[in-house]
Amino acid sequence: MKKAISLLSGGMDSLVTLALAMQEYEVYPLHVNYGNRTGKKELHCYRKIVGHYALKGSLEVDIDYLARIGGSSLTDSSIKPEIGIPKAGEIPSSYVPFRNTHLLSIAVSYAEVLGASKIFIGAVEEDSSGYPDCTKKYIASFNELIRVGSKAGGKIEVTAPLIDLTKSAIVKKGLDLRVPFEHTWSCYVGNEKACGRCQSCYLRQKGFRDAGARDPVQYEKFGD
Amino acid sequence: MKKAISLLSGGMDSLVTLALAMQEYEVYPLHVNYGNRTGKKELHCYRKIVGHYALKGSLEVDIDYLARIGGSSLTDSSIKPEIGIPKAGEIPSSYVPFRNTHLLSIAVSYAEVLGASKIFIGAVEEDSSGYPDCTKKYIASFNELIRVGSKAGGKIEVTAPLIDLTKSAIVKKGLDLRVPFEHTWSCYVGNEKACGRCQSCYLRQKGFRDAGARDPVQYEKFGD
Repeated sequence: MKKAISLLSGGMDSLVTLALAMQEYEVYPLHVNYGNRTGKKELHCYRKIVGHYALKGSLEVDIDYLARIGGSSLTDSSIKPEIGIPKAGEIPSSYVPFRNTHLLSIAVSYAEVLGASKIFIGAVEEDSSGYPDCTKKYIASFNELIRVGSKAGGKIEVTAPLIDLTKSAIVKKGLDLRVPFEHTWSCYVGNEKACGRCQSCYLRQKGFRDAGARDPVQYEKFGD
Repeated sequence: MKKAISLLSGGMDSLVTLALAMQEYEVYPLHVNYGNRTGKKELHCYRKIVGHYALKGSLEVDIDYLARIGGSSLTDSSIKPEIGIPKAGEIPSSYVPFRNTHLLSIAVSYAEVLGASKIFIGAVEEDSSGYPDCTKKYIASFNELIRVGSKAGGKIEVTAPLIDLTKSAIVKKGLDLRVPFEHTWSCYVGNEKACGRCQSCYLRQKGFRDAGARDPVQYEKFGD
């Protein structure tokens, strides 16, 4: 079985992506903590998921220098994350400067050493917050960078199987694959329960609602 | 004066690059320790150079997870660096998987938050070890990635002013600019003095010799 690396944040999109990757590959999970305020929650979820699937070769990496650099409401507590529906054509304050390139670079380095041929990332362009590093154009450009800038060249490719899906389609796919949605965290705010108000909670709740499914995660503000 | 970030390893190429950057920009130096065996020497040199030029906004970042990932003679002591002349068309064991993408990603994140428009890197294609992430093609591809994958878009550009120069031309440029070559470290091995035998020492010594200049750094094997 060919090897792949799957970036696993502890959120629902990367979990469904992992389940898809496991259908075809021997998967090595990679978690990156970038100093975001919900980092501990996400690491806890990551470890639960790794345990759930009994995955081997887990790599946990700390790049909390991104919090030192700042510039995002996810890493700087003086900036508040936006609430509710993302505005079309606007990049919200939760954008972490160039974050996915850091994540994917770590995955490429790990893939080169492991001899893995695929890197899975749960990036979503549809029904998303409009981050520039979650688009098909970005993934294509990154693959070109691997081709010209690594020893592995064209032997490693990033794939984002959810990129064109709506949140409800992602929920449905996850239910089909029986993923443990109860071990995921999406909220940007990070109290005991999910806030139910931030853009990420909004998109997640809408996804479950549109799929006619029950979200197993507990919310502060809106019950389900 | 416009802002720029200059990646500064503590080696001679990035020092000359910094001196060029300072002619036109307010420069913020960035040093990345990636767990290489000569990391402490390089950090020491970096700090000497920052002090020499009294630079502000210095950012030091640790990504020693690259040593955990391994796959390079610079980070894994069980792999020996090659000696002498680099072989054309061969990527040596000192290649650190996808390293420059990590370095440049940190620079882009910092540039986005600072509002810097240029990122200087001392990559050299001519007279080099043949690393794929030290080529003009790579730099162009990375700039395309910034354009499509960051909030800053086309407002940030990576530039590698030495990319086409020979080592002796770099030495001459450095002497013209009166850079403190005595505060640099190039050796891959990392004992008290430079080894004088590894590829990096070989290229450096050849550069000084061809420029008819004296290398102020001390060597174990070959005096000058």
